[in-house]
Amino acid sequence: MSAGSSAAAADALPPILDGRPRAAEIRAEVAALSAEFDAAGVRPRLAVVVATEDESTAWYVRSLARAAEKSGPACDIVRLPADSLPERIGEALERLSADPAVHGIILQTPLPEGSVAAELAAALDPDKDVDGANPLSLGRLAAKLPAFAPATAEAVVQLLDFHRVPLSGRTVAVVGRSTVVGKPLAHLLLDRDATVTVAHSRTADLAAVTRQADIVVAAAGRIGLVTAEHLRQGAVVVDVGTNPTPEGGLAGDVDASAAERAAAVSPVPGGVGPITTALLLRHTVLAARRAAGM
Amino acid sequence: MSAGSSAAAADALPPILDGRPRAAEIRAEVAALSAEFDAAGVRPRLAVVVATEDESTAWYVRSLARAAEKSGPACDIVRLPADSLPERIGEALERLSADPAVHGIILQTPLPEGSVAAELAAALDPDKDVDGANPLSLGRLAAKLPAFAPATAEAVVQLLDFHRVPLSGRTVAVVGRSTVVGKPLAHLLLDRDATVTVAHSRTADLAAVTRQADIVVAAAGRIGLVTAEHLRQGAVVVDVGTNPTPEGGLAGDVDASAAERAAAVSPVPGGVGPITTALLLRHTVLAARRAAGM
Repeated sequence: MSAGSSAAAADALPPILDGRPRAAEIRAEVAALSAEFDAAGVRPRLAVVVATEDESTAWYVRSLARAAEKSGPACDIVRLPADSLPERIGEALERLSADPAVHGIILQTPLPEGSVAAELAAALDPDKDVDGANPLSLGRLAAKLPAFAPATAEAVVQLLDFHRVPLSGRTVAVVGRSTVVGKPLAHLLLDRDATVTVAHSRTADLAAVTRQADIVVAAAGRIGLVTAEHLRQGAVVVDVGTNPTPEGGLAGDVDASAAERAAAVSPVPGGVGPITTALLLRHTVLAARRAAGM
Repeated sequence: MSAGSSAAAADALPPILDGRPRAAEIRAEVAALSAEFDAAGVRPRLAVVVATEDESTAWYVRSLARAAEKSGPACDIVRLPADSLPERIGEALERLSADPAVHGIILQTPLPEGSVAAELAAALDPDKDVDGANPLSLGRLAAKLPAFAPATAEAVVQLLDFHRVPLSGRTVAVVGRSTVVGKPLAHLLLDRDATVTVAHSRTADLAAVTRQADIVVAAAGRIGLVTAEHLRQGAVVVDVGTNPTPEGGLAGDVDASAAERAAAVSPVPGGVGPITTALLLRHTVLAARRAAGM
């Protein structure tokens, strides 16, 4: 069913897979769920631990805080020095895990040299691990037990679902094997009955691999990595890249030439990103509901 | 480098990828490590929780116990009724996790109806989780943190390493997406820089997918699923299937016709199985060493 259904789906698809309409739906749900807390005098609260001076991170965290304030949850930015020792960051995560007023916790990357995200994230209360960073969350996801998925990985699936791109029985190439996107995304796609290939920087012939796929997800963190040459005619392409450009902008992993062969490509910004942000808020509200026994 | 290096490796490969020589090496290491405990008056101890009357399971557990006794570790079979409630099984796992005389714990499948292996395995002390069944172990594996890998998945990699089948930059198709084999094996292979495709019962055209691969690992639990038609010339095939036959024997997932195209195929029995058993003992001895501060 691969090439045929790919073409069939292509007819109905818009060439640009806009993520903003789905993000708006999720934010509306978050606002409605947040409103239910007002009567109880409680406010869902997200804490974002930031231990970097990185500018694009600061930009991202500010946009997350703004989105939170607009849809209901509180968002605390917990700033630590950019030269913090792992112990110091771990203490912050433990303190927030123990704080009943905090419902969701994100450990923002990049981290100071000497800190390993997955190691530190083991200190996160799994019930508050709204970005699925604790290895326990990743393991539970792989074992099909309830857990928060890493928001970016979940956003890819939600973007495809929103645009009615079928996954069952289709071939998907995920370019990038990171713990935060590539690997958890592979699990989510397998759960949806897709046949999943994970390619990466050591893949011998990337274009040969991705040309086999109905859907290509670019999550390698390299500007313009996926070109027309990497795609079969009618492929659907999701761009997870958020690479800072010298001009201070944001560029994806997908080259403009991809549009020559792809049935549809998700934009950067405005594709996976807005859904990711909205899902972090959704997870936070769900965590708050569970904590409140709602 | 895919097809070319496949052929190159094929020249040096024996047509049958025997697992017994590598298993013997591991058992010798286990015996040497076990001997170090004698002076301390301690014996590494593996506990196998069995809650089934299944005959092939009983056969497997007996062979594991025999292998243990021969190479040093003690092996306790903890039998529970085949109609045990999940709570009862969970209690047994907690008790064994708390018992300082027990260093390794295996929760044998199949389990009684109503019991979910991954849920119950969350009760296993990760330090004693010698078959990597606790979702935390799986998550740590995916995040490249220290953890015991599921022994079968690790055995596949060890079998390929023993026979000098290169993994870096090669394409591997894993047929089967189970939590105990397919998914953890995908992580192990990615860590070795292979490009990994996970196929399964809902894959639209299995033969088209597996024919792309330098190496095919059959872990679907279906007798004779992988035939010559599923292979490119010179492919290396690892058979993880252990399907009981009506005659009381054991059959793999790979059909005899595979030999027509494959450069090498691992046998069942005598391929992955003996290495798996030896690795469970190795993990137990390593856990005992860690518990003793050795």
